Parts: sequence; C-alpha cells; structure tokens
Amino acid sequence: MSCELCLEDGGIILYQTSLLRIVLATDVPGYTGICRVIWNEHVQEMSDLDAVDQGYLLEWVMKVEHAVREVLQPDKINLASLGNVVPHLHWHVIPRFKDDTHFPAPIWGAPRRVAPARPFAEDLASRLRAALIAQH
Amino acid sequence: MSCELCLEDGGIILYQTSLLRIVLATDVPGYTGICRVIWNEHVQEMSDLDAVDQGYLLEWVMKVEHAVREVLQPDKINLASLGNVVPHLHWHVIPRFKDDTHFPAPIWGAPRRVAPARPFAEDLASRLRAALIAQH
Repeated sequence: MSCELCLEDGGIILYQTSLLRIVLATDVPGYTGICRVIWNEHVQEMSDLDAVDQGYLLEWVMKVEHAVREVLQPDKINLASLGNVVPHLHWHVIPRFKDDTHFPAPIWGAPRRVAPARPFAEDLASRLRAALIAQH
Repeated sequence: MSCELCLEDGGIILYQTSLLRIVLATDVPGYTGICRVIWNEHVQEMSDLDAVDQGYLLEWVMKVEHAVREVLQPDKINLASLGNVVPHLHWHVIPRFKDDTHFPAPIWGAPRRVAPARPFAEDLASRLRAALIAQH
C-alpha cells in the first residue's frame, strides 16, 4: 500500500527527531502557518502507540502549539488528528483568526467569508523553527 | 462571561474525575458514539495547561479512544480540540465509519451521503462507561 506520508515529507520540514517530523503546511488555501506533527512510522491511531510514545508525540504537538502562538498570535488554536484520507498518524496545529475564512467553524467546511490576505511570509518557516528550538 | 461548558455537562456523563469529565454527545445529527473529554476548569488552550495536566488529559482521551474502539469498532478515530465557538478546553473523540455521512471528510463539512441509521442504543452509555472503567 502506498501512503503519501510514508513517501513524502508532507510540507516544509521545520524539525525532525528519529520518531517524528514537524512540517509547515503549504497546501491549505487561505491559511498560513498550519503545522503538522507527523509520526514517522506508519501507524493509524494515536491509541496504537504505547503511553511513552503518546506522551512524546503530545510533547512535540505542544511545542508546536507554543511556537505557533508565539509567532502568529492567533485568536485560537485548533488541534486535530483525523487521517481519514491518509491513515498515517499526524496532528494538525492550526492557528485560527476571527476574520479567517471559516471562523468560528472548523476549517474543513464551506468558507463563510473572504479573509484578508495573509501572505506566506518567506521567513515564516525560519521563525517557527527558531521558536521551536528555543523551547529546548 | 457565560460559558456553556462551565454551566452545563455538555452531554451524558460517562465518568468524572476532580479535573475533567467524559460525556457522550447527543447533539451531533447522524452520529452516535461521539465522546467529549472536558477539562472542568475554564481554560482556553491545551498549551495553557502545565505538562502534568496535559499528560493527564491525554491519558483520559486515550482511555476514551480505547473504549470507543472497543465498543463501536469504527473504521477510524478522529480526535480534535477546536473550541472556536466555546473556548473552554474539550476534546472530541469521534468514531468514523466508511459509510457515515461525511467520510472520508471531517464531520464538520457538508454531508456527502445519507448514512445508514445507527440508532442511539439505550445501553451505549453504559457499555462505554464499562469499557472506560475496565481500563483501571
């Protein structure tokens, strides 16, 4: 079985450990700064990991959440592990703004408005990376 | 400020600890078995908790995920902490089936099909509660 997240990075790599990688998503129209924490091994569900790995993955999701809050100052953070299309364990860390395309609905429904342009800043990846590393 | 999850249980109570409660949602049309893990204190983001509380909350989300998998045998689990409308920390544990209303899309978009009826079994709450307690 070919799995997209086994074959590809899934975004711009911000950080890697032996067990997981953190990427900046570039494939969500209208949204800038969505990060993903992708478990490297092909596992379907969070509950398929043992408690130690679950804790380790959460720790990194939280580091990403802190970095995203610091760099982008969103009104809200959305966290999700869905994987219905690509059933390879990965977490979305989504900065939400009150004037974004879908707020307060989740980003996966029909858009409610045209949001102000938030251009994909060239230095966003490096700022997020710096904020991640600073937490060590 | 009045917060719905400060004032109301948010569903049928399955289990409570001093810090959180687990409820069975009854307010999502077409879906049976969605559970929520609600932090009792009014906190907005997962990253507003300290690491110990984050780990404790994750532990309970995982217990719920195990219970939901055992009782409902879904094709996939979706986990999400959104809170855009009610910014009071809570996790959704959502059993997904390949023939449900939205699969493989998230449940928050437009439905893709009419799903087979999955009646709200009267004993569902007690079966989930038993599966939760059995993990101690």
